[in-house]
Amino acid sequence: MNKEERILKMHLQCPMPKLDFDIITLGHGSGGLLTNKLLDSGVFDVLKNDILDKRHDGAILDLTGAHAFTTDSFVITPVFFPGGNIGDLAVHGTVNDVAMCGAIPDYISLSFILEEGLKMEDFWKILISIKCACDDAGVRVVTGDTKVVDRGKGDQIFINTTGIGRIHPHAQISMDRIKPGDKLILSDNMATHGVAIMSVRDGLEFETTIKSDSRNLNHVVKHLLDEVGKDVHLLRDPTRGGVATVLTEVSRDCNLGIDIKQSLLPIDEQVASACEILGLDPLYVANEGIFVAIVSPGAADAALGVLKSYDICRNAAIIGEVVEDHSGKVILESGIGGKRVVNMLVGEQLPRIC
Amino acid sequence: MNKEERILKMHLQCPMPKLDFDIITLGHGSGGLLTNKLLDSGVFDVLKNDILDKRHDGAILDLTGAHAFTTDSFVITPVFFPGGNIGDLAVHGTVNDVAMCGAIPDYISLSFILEEGLKMEDFWKILISIKCACDDAGVRVVTGDTKVVDRGKGDQIFINTTGIGRIHPHAQISMDRIKPGDKLILSDNMATHGVAIMSVRDGLEFETTIKSDSRNLNHVVKHLLDEVGKDVHLLRDPTRGGVATVLTEVSRDCNLGIDIKQSLLPIDEQVASACEILGLDPLYVANEGIFVAIVSPGAADAALGVLKSYDICRNAAIIGEVVEDHSGKVILESGIGGKRVVNMLVGEQLPRIC
Repeated sequence: MNKEERILKMHLQCPMPKLDFDIITLGHGSGGLLTNKLLDSGVFDVLKNDILDKRHDGAILDLTGAHAFTTDSFVITPVFFPGGNIGDLAVHGTVNDVAMCGAIPDYISLSFILEEGLKMEDFWKILISIKCACDDAGVRVVTGDTKVVDRGKGDQIFINTTGIGRIHPHAQISMDRIKPGDKLILSDNMATHGVAIMSVRDGLEFETTIKSDSRNLNHVVKHLLDEVGKDVHLLRDPTRGGVATVLTEVSRDCNLGIDIKQSLLPIDEQVASACEILGLDPLYVANEGIFVAIVSPGAADAALGVLKSYDICRNAAIIGEVVEDHSGKVILESGIGGKRVVNMLVGEQLPRIC
Repeated sequence: MNKEERILKMHLQCPMPKLDFDIITLGHGSGGLLTNKLLDSGVFDVLKNDILDKRHDGAILDLTGAHAFTTDSFVITPVFFPGGNIGDLAVHGTVNDVAMCGAIPDYISLSFILEEGLKMEDFWKILISIKCACDDAGVRVVTGDTKVVDRGKGDQIFINTTGIGRIHPHAQISMDRIKPGDKLILSDNMATHGVAIMSVRDGLEFETTIKSDSRNLNHVVKHLLDEVGKDVHLLRDPTRGGVATVLTEVSRDCNLGIDIKQSLLPIDEQVASACEILGLDPLYVANEGIFVAIVSPGAADAALGVLKSYDICRNAAIIGEVVEDHSGKVILESGIGGKRVVNMLVGEQLPRIC
């Protein structure tokens, strides 16, 4: 089943409850009767699991060993976009951040800031997407919170997810393990998420079939660590600021240089054309479904093999390497052999992309 | 040192950095150069600790055993209020939720949703308060996130904090341990936080010296569990919906009745008068600095003794008990001996109180 089919199935399993309200009101954030009514109407049923069902102020988890702990608030606009919505995005984002720490995500918290007037129907769609994304990742929502702000003091819905995951036994992710000669692998086409959002952004709309590639990366990362864990020196998802910003941060923080080649950067043709028309450098466009892995040279081919065995990484490519020269700088070799320094994103290409 | 003095000291230790911007702009949420500039300008210095300093996508924590995991988003208005601001409130709220699970809070994540145009000076004040509240609780901010939304799509600042804490070795907090005869203890005066916020709310302002009692409860809870841990059956902080809503939820969820006496409910005289003038029942007013403990009858005096040894619980009182009768209902005996059923808060007394 593909994502659309799984979401449809979940909608059939958990139809929107019949309620005496069709929009969210301030009272739904009161902590009193209306909050209970909203949660008991079906929210708890959709997210159901042993831990959440206890309904205490917090979840009790049995944890042993090293764990990753990450947080992200999601404020994307529009809330619904080609290929997803703020709900699954909020799960993917945190699941992926946990995975980037070399960990296997287990638990997430889910906190809503709803704007008064949000359609209950939209809330339900988002909730179902959250559930589907959690099931796909194999994580459970174990605790949550719901706040409502006055009309005009929010933007439909903001979501915070915070994740916990066990560090993979083979993971040794650490900036100081990066060495000259290490290979940079990009897990799939870049710039897809950002361009999909732009295509539906007010005042910018253009016709395209490009869909966001927002998705969970935890399964492929786990497989990668299973196979070549000790050779994976760093994992990063190039979300806001794009591939350029992440590489610049890495080269700055590890005091080494990075060389990449334009011709090796995987990008969908339609996305590349859209970037050209919009005058955007795809290196700076935000992503939500890809990651950069820095691996020792001897393991690069094996790593690439693992990635390419997943449909969501079929365009994975070695895009460059770590070098001793020009420490702290990323140098891009263009298609015709010219070289330029890649800097961090300055200002904002497109605000509220995640 | 009292809270004001500690905050002042922290401001002197960490003065606001000189920056080329005095308000938050959309670019500060870009994930690129401006985000880095904002964080490197002093945010990382203020919150500094071994784990945060690694600056990965998430924190790596070494955890062993049962842990509590709680989340809360804070959307209070106004952001600054008598006795605190959204920053320390966001720490207190999550520290207290962890404590209510019978746990000792260790780590929190910190996620900002800033509105474009927020004064840097206000952001700095909030950050300093966060740091002071964390130091007071003994918790560390180990991971975070910063998003910026367009002007008019937020309300200055929203904060999510998510906490992790070790379950106290003596804690056996569980709804099904509540028995008829158990005593209900309220840790201090009720309704103070809610009335303090109302006193500065647009259109409602009135002159008063009432300050919010928003504060960390983890130290007193730890001491309580050290002394009479096995006899503590439930801990709850009556935030939104007030004492009435929490007790109603408890009696519903444990299928027992609860009797409380009006004359035993601790409340500050000024707060009581303000409630009378505003026509509010203090039982429904939100709190942020108190908790309800349900303890076995034999341990009630010892528990009260522990609480009263803390200045922040000097008005602690046994307010009633759990009974076999009227299961699922809370009955209040008024000052003159009349009895009435206490229900959950319906609608919203005062939105955005936390």
